[in-house]
Amino acid sequence: MRHIRPAPLTADAFAPYGEVLSATGAYRLINDGMCRRHHDLARLDFGAGRAGISIFLAQPRTLPCSLDLLERHPLGSQAFVPMGAQPFLVVVAPGPDATPLAFITDGAQAINLRRGTWHGVLTPLHAPGLFAVIDRIAPDGEAPGANLVEHRLPAPFLITPP
Amino acid sequence: MRHIRPAPLTADAFAPYGEVLSATGAYRLINDGMCRRHHDLARLDFGAGRAGISIFLAQPRTLPCSLDLLERHPLGSQAFVPMGAQPFLVVVAPGPDATPLAFITDGAQAINLRRGTWHGVLTPLHAPGLFAVIDRIAPDGEAPGANLVEHRLPAPFLITPP
Repeated sequence: MRHIRPAPLTADAFAPYGEVLSATGAYRLINDGMCRRHHDLARLDFGAGRAGISIFLAQPRTLPCSLDLLERHPLGSQAFVPMGAQPFLVVVAPGPDATPLAFITDGAQAINLRRGTWHGVLTPLHAPGLFAVIDRIAPDGEAPGANLVEHRLPAPFLITPP
Repeated sequence: MRHIRPAPLTADAFAPYGEVLSATGAYRLINDGMCRRHHDLARLDFGAGRAGISIFLAQPRTLPCSLDLLERHPLGSQAFVPMGAQPFLVVVAPGPDATPLAFITDGAQAINLRRGTWHGVLTPLHAPGLFAVIDRIAPDGEAPGANLVEHRLPAPFLITPP
């Protein structure tokens, strides 16, 4: 089985796939100077849909773990905000048959996947695996599943510890 | 100084002001059964603006603390997602001169403030005070501050420990 070793998540390395959302870079001071606002960090794109916030509770995994499924959302971006200060695994790929890339967040990073990006499913590395997800809510009448394409990998990869 | 004692945050108590976003209630199983999706929990409303994700880093407070400022966003809803599993203080009010209500989250709750709701500024109770905020990004050309109304309380309140 082919191995993939995760790298620390950085904005530069992730740029082809989306944005890293974190308290770095420029900010505005608000609330009488008590709060830094790092403004409008994600390139949100919901096409004919609309923005929604959902809560995901995902079973944590441990590394090494197998990667046998990629998916993409052709109609909208998708952001994952961890509701715990714990790292999670991020897998993206330039295409369904390309070798994926794996990253591990630093515990203070959220991500936004650009519309159409091939990615692995949400993979927390610590309990409870609670996330807020900002993604596209389908308009009334859209066919179920229109925004989901799944691709089973004929030869799974093994994501190793970093 | 008038005192306000915070109550545990519940969806029912918060309903006049917005939504509590948490992994309770109905869900869909996704990702081969590994993840619960609590779908589309927030009533987002951005009018002529658009949705954005910003990261806030706010100085933690300890209780008791003084409440001397309320604000509202007349043009859009505002959601706060804690990026740590720690409680934070939520203050809302039926009007600028009404007695505010205070709530403390359970560490696994995010909130969405309905458009126009009077509220206190973001008040983490634990370091580092990191949040993702989903709120309205102004359209080009809008006057700065058009979506912010601040009200200094002539007689501050003291928010006590719960």
